[in-house]
Amino acid sequence: MNIQRVRSDLVATERVPGLRDKSLRVVEDGSGHLTVALDPVGAKTGDFVITIETSAARYAAGDYAIATDLTIGGIIDHWSEEHWRA
Amino acid sequence: MNIQRVRSDLVATERVPGLRDKSLRVVEDGSGHLTVALDPVGAKTGDFVITIETSAARYAAGDYAIATDLTIGGIIDHWSEEHWRA
Amino acid sequence: MNIQRVRSDLVATERVPGLRDKSLRVVEDGSGHLTVALDPVGAKTGDFVITIETSAARYAAGDYAIATDLTIGGIIDHWSEEHWRA
Amino acid sequence: MNIQRVRSDLVATERVPGLRDKSLRVVEDGSGHLTVALDPVGAKTGDFVITIETSAARYAAGDYAIATDLTIGGIIDHWSEEHWRA
Amino acid sequence: MNIQRVRSDLVATERVPGLRDKSLRVVEDGSGHLTVALDPVGAKTGDFVITIETSAARYAAGDYAIATDLTIGGIIDHWSEEHWRA
Repeated sequence: MNIQRVRSDLVATERVPGLRDKSLRVVEDGSGHLTVALDPVGAKTGDFVITIETSAARYAAGDYAIATDLTIGGIIDHWSEEHWRA
Repeated sequence: MNIQRVRSDLVATERVPGLRDKSLRVVEDGSGHLTVALDPVGAKTGDFVITIETSAARYAAGDYAIATDLTIGGIIDHWSEEHWRA
Repeated sequence: MNIQRVRSDLVATERVPGLRDKSLRVVEDGSGHLTVALDPVGAKTGDFVITIETSAARYAAGDYAIATDLTIGGIIDHWSEEHWRA
Repeated sequence: MNIQRVRSDLVATERVPGLRDKSLRVVEDGSGHLTVALDPVGAKTGDFVITIETSAARYAAGDYAIATDLTIGGIIDHWSEEHWRA
Repeated sequence: MNIQRVRSDLVATERVPGLRDKSLRVVEDGSGHLTVALDPVGAKTGDFVITIETSAARYAAGDYAIATDLTIGGIIDHWSEEHWRA
């Protein structure tokens, strides 16, 4: 899993049926690179989260037929930016 | 998922049966690197899209027997190049 | 598999059901990059471990429905930092 | 999928049964990095091809029990080196 | 598949049941980066091998329940260091 921070919501109205109507978030890693994660836990902008990729992302989404390759798996209780920008 | 922009169509007449007759697009990421994605949503050149990789790409294609490792999952409603070239 | 070293525990109280109540560890690779691994072997801080990614991480977790993309697969008997920082 | 160019054949007489007797090719990407792909389409040295990775590589091989993580999925009709060395 | 060279054995007595008692090897790539591969073919130190990653690694291991993400798939008949350090 990777440690990422939630930057914003992402709206994609036109999408494949496999993504259902799931919430998407723009997340950044420690070097500022932006990717998009499905969010089943209700993370808020600024939260440090663990993200899960590859086939496990579909299991983390609660239904393995959901077409996600990156899912927020949890909100980290204690983390700080100094830990992160290694 | 990654944020990519559609650059052009790609024609590959001679192909494995697993790709069927699906449309392929050349997409670029924020650093200009080019990859090829299957397009089930009908994205146009210049659109910012979210792309889905690994096994989820097959689910996003609408039939998990389709042999794609990268599929356009949706068209982003609002995005700009400044967000992207981080 | 990758060679990584255990840095600390990670607490994520709010998490997806797919992660169960499994222990998570922050692990670092030879260049200091931090990721998060599920730990079914009880590794201690400072241990050099082999980590398993992609779908095999779910098999290594002992139940392939567990939503992990990185699992500690074993503790290396003999390793030293000189081998590692290549 | 990635855009790669076929460099040469690769002979590996001693191999796991999961690779069967399938043809292997050395392929290069735009930065000259070499990898090995299974070739079910009969690509020739110098051809620009699309390669398929992760579990889709097994579907592209025509039998998902074939142990390949990279398979040539098609030959690109029109491509040039200027497009490629971005 | 990647082209790697066998560097040494790796001993990990304490391991997850999913790795069984399979032999592990430290392998290096063309830039000297070290990873760990399961070895079902009996490669020797110094051999140039092709390694298979993601879910295909489990198929290459001969039993897809084996928890490996990197498996030696074959020994390359002819290769030299000049080809490799590109």
